[in-house]
Amino acid sequence: MALHDKGEVVVAVDVMGGDFAPHVVLKGALSAAKSGVPVTLFGPLQSVKHDLNMLDTQWSTLPILVVDAPDIVEMAEEPVSAIKKKKNSSLVQAVASVKAGQSAAVVSAGNSGALMASATFILGRLDGTERPAIAGWLPAKGRNVLALDLGANADCKPAYLCQFAHLGDEHVRRVLGIQSPRIALLSNGAEKGKGSTLVKEAFHLLENSSLRFIGNIEPQDIMRNKADVVVCDGFAGNVLLKSIEATSALMHGVLYEALKRVGNGHGEDLTYITWRDELVRQLNIKADYGGEGGALLLGVEGTVVVAHGSAREKDIERAILFAHKTACSQGEKA
Amino acid sequence: MALHDKGEVVVAVDVMGGDFAPHVVLKGALSAAKSGVPVTLFGPLQSVKHDLNMLDTQWSTLPILVVDAPDIVEMAEEPVSAIKKKKNSSLVQAVASVKAGQSAAVVSAGNSGALMASATFILGRLDGTERPAIAGWLPAKGRNVLALDLGANADCKPAYLCQFAHLGDEHVRRVLGIQSPRIALLSNGAEKGKGSTLVKEAFHLLENSSLRFIGNIEPQDIMRNKADVVVCDGFAGNVLLKSIEATSALMHGVLYEALKRVGNGHGEDLTYITWRDELVRQLNIKADYGGEGGALLLGVEGTVVVAHGSAREKDIERAILFAHKTACSQGEKA
Repeated sequence: MALHDKGEVVVAVDVMGGDFAPHVVLKGALSAAKSGVPVTLFGPLQSVKHDLNMLDTQWSTLPILVVDAPDIVEMAEEPVSAIKKKKNSSLVQAVASVKAGQSAAVVSAGNSGALMASATFILGRLDGTERPAIAGWLPAKGRNVLALDLGANADCKPAYLCQFAHLGDEHVRRVLGIQSPRIALLSNGAEKGKGSTLVKEAFHLLENSSLRFIGNIEPQDIMRNKADVVVCDGFAGNVLLKSIEATSALMHGVLYEALKRVGNGHGEDLTYITWRDELVRQLNIKADYGGEGGALLLGVEGTVVVAHGSAREKDIERAILFAHKTACSQGEKA
Repeated sequence: MALHDKGEVVVAVDVMGGDFAPHVVLKGALSAAKSGVPVTLFGPLQSVKHDLNMLDTQWSTLPILVVDAPDIVEMAEEPVSAIKKKKNSSLVQAVASVKAGQSAAVVSAGNSGALMASATFILGRLDGTERPAIAGWLPAKGRNVLALDLGANADCKPAYLCQFAHLGDEHVRRVLGIQSPRIALLSNGAEKGKGSTLVKEAFHLLENSSLRFIGNIEPQDIMRNKADVVVCDGFAGNVLLKSIEATSALMHGVLYEALKRVGNGHGEDLTYITWRDELVRQLNIKADYGGEGGALLLGVEGTVVVAHGSAREKDIERAILFAHKTACSQGEKA
C-alpha cells in the first residue's frame, strides 16, 4: 500500500456503505484498481486490510490506499444527525477527502441521504442550487434519458424542481453535446394542468424559465425518447427508477425460465444455444442507471457517485469507473 | 337495438372516453357484447349508431343499447367544472345510469379525474372514505399485487392513505380470500423513517391501525410478492403503474426485434418458430392492470372501472368483462 502519485485522478470509496458492505465493495474496488483506477478505501483500517488480504494477496501491488475511518453510518440512520455524530465514518471521510483535494471523486452505496448531506455540508452547493439532486440515466429506445432527482429529496418545493432542470440541462449539454436539451416534467398525465400541486407550480416556473421546457411527461414517453432531461421530485423519481429496474429484473427472470423450459431437450443443440445466447445478450437492457452502476449527485462542488444500496461487485466496479471518467472530464473542463 | 332484459347485469360504457374514442371503444364493446355481456353505450346517438353500422351490420342483434349523451368531457378538462357543465356528457350519463339502477357497472377510458368526480358526486362515497382510489393489479412473481391509489388523487393527506389501506384490505379479502392481507406503504426506502412527509405521517397512522401493516415497500419487493396490498398516493402510484407498463413495453419491443434478428435465416425452420412462439407467449407479462384492462375505483357506491386513456380495443373489451364479473360478484355479496 503506497500513497497515490501526485496528479492522479483518485476515487474515494466508502467501504462500509451498502447492503452488502464491506465485501462486495472491496471486490468491486479491487476490480476497478486492477483496470488501473487509483482508489482510496475508507473504512476500519485493520478489518479492511484483513479482508483485502483474504480477497487478493497481491492487493498491495495495486493502486489502492486504505485510510482508517472506523465509524459506520447505518442505512436507516437520520442523515443529518448521523453525519454530525460520525465525523470519522467511512462515508464522511470519503467525502472529506474530495474537499481536501486528496480524491477527485467519491463513490458510496451507503445511506444516500447521509451522502447528500455530507456532500452539501462538506463540499458545498453550486450557486443557485438549494438542494443537490441525484441524476441518473433511464433506459429508452435509442438513447438513455437523464432524470433527476432520483431520490435525494423526498420532499421538494417547486423552485427545487426548476433548479434540477437547470442542473440537468447543463449536464446533458456537456456530456451529450446537445445544444438545446428538451426538458420535461414527470407527471401523472401529459396535458398541462395534470399533476400534484407541486408539479403544477413547477410547471409554471419552468414555462417561464429560459429552458426549452416541453411540458409534462409520462414514463412511456420517457422511454420513447421524447425528452432529454426528465425533472421530478426525489420521491416520484425514486419510484420511477426502481419500478423500471424491478420490472426489468422480473422480465429477465421470466425470460430465463421460459428459455429453460423452451430449451428442454435442446441442451446440446448448437443452433438453440447460439440463438438463446444472442437473445439474452440483446435483451440485456441496462436499467440500472443506464449501466453506469451509479448516479451523479448534481449541484455540489465535486464529483459524487451514488450507488444503489443493493449494489453488487460489478455495480461498484462500474460506479468507480464512472466516477473516474466523470472526474477526468471535469478536470478537462476546469 | 332493444332494451335490456330486467335483472341483467348491464355494463354502461362511455363511448367518447379515451385517446382513441369512439372507434376502439365501440370495437371493444362489440366484442364484449358478442361474448354475451349486455352493454349500454353512452354517446352522441346518431354518430354512435352510424359507427356501429360501419363496424358490424349485425350489431342490433347483440345485447347493445345506445343512449344519447351528446357532450364530451375532454382529457385535459378540469374535472369538477367539466362534469358540472356537461351533465349530458357520455361520461356523466354513463355514471348516472349506475345510480339509477339501469346499469350495474360503468367503464370509461376518459378523463379519470372527471370519472372520479362523477362517481363521487353521483354515486356517493362509502362511509369512512374521504376520497375514492383507483385500485389495480401490479405484476409480481407468483400472484399479482393490489395497489392503490394509482392516479385518482394527485395530492393526498395521510388519512387518505390510511383509508386506501382499508379499502384495499377489504377488496383483497373478498376477491382473493386472504384472511389477513399484508399491507405495505410505497416509499423510497424499505426502512422505517424513509419517505416524504406524507409517507412518514401515513406510516404512523397505519402502524396504529387495526390492519396488518408490514411497513414501507419498494418496487422490487412488490414484484417479489412481499405484500398483498400496496398503498400510495395517486401521483406516485401512477408513476409506479406507468413505469411498469412502459418498461414492459420497451422490453417486449426489444425482444421482438432481437427475435427477428436472431431468427434471420430461420424463417422456415419449424423448431425455431416453435421456440419463438412459446417464448413470446411465456413472456407476455400482463403489466396493464394485471390483464384486467382497467382498474377499479374503490370507495364509491357502485362498480366503476377506469381504463387507460390509451386503451385499445382489446383493453376496452377486457375492462367491460372485468366490470361485468365484478358487478356479478358484488350482486352475490349483496
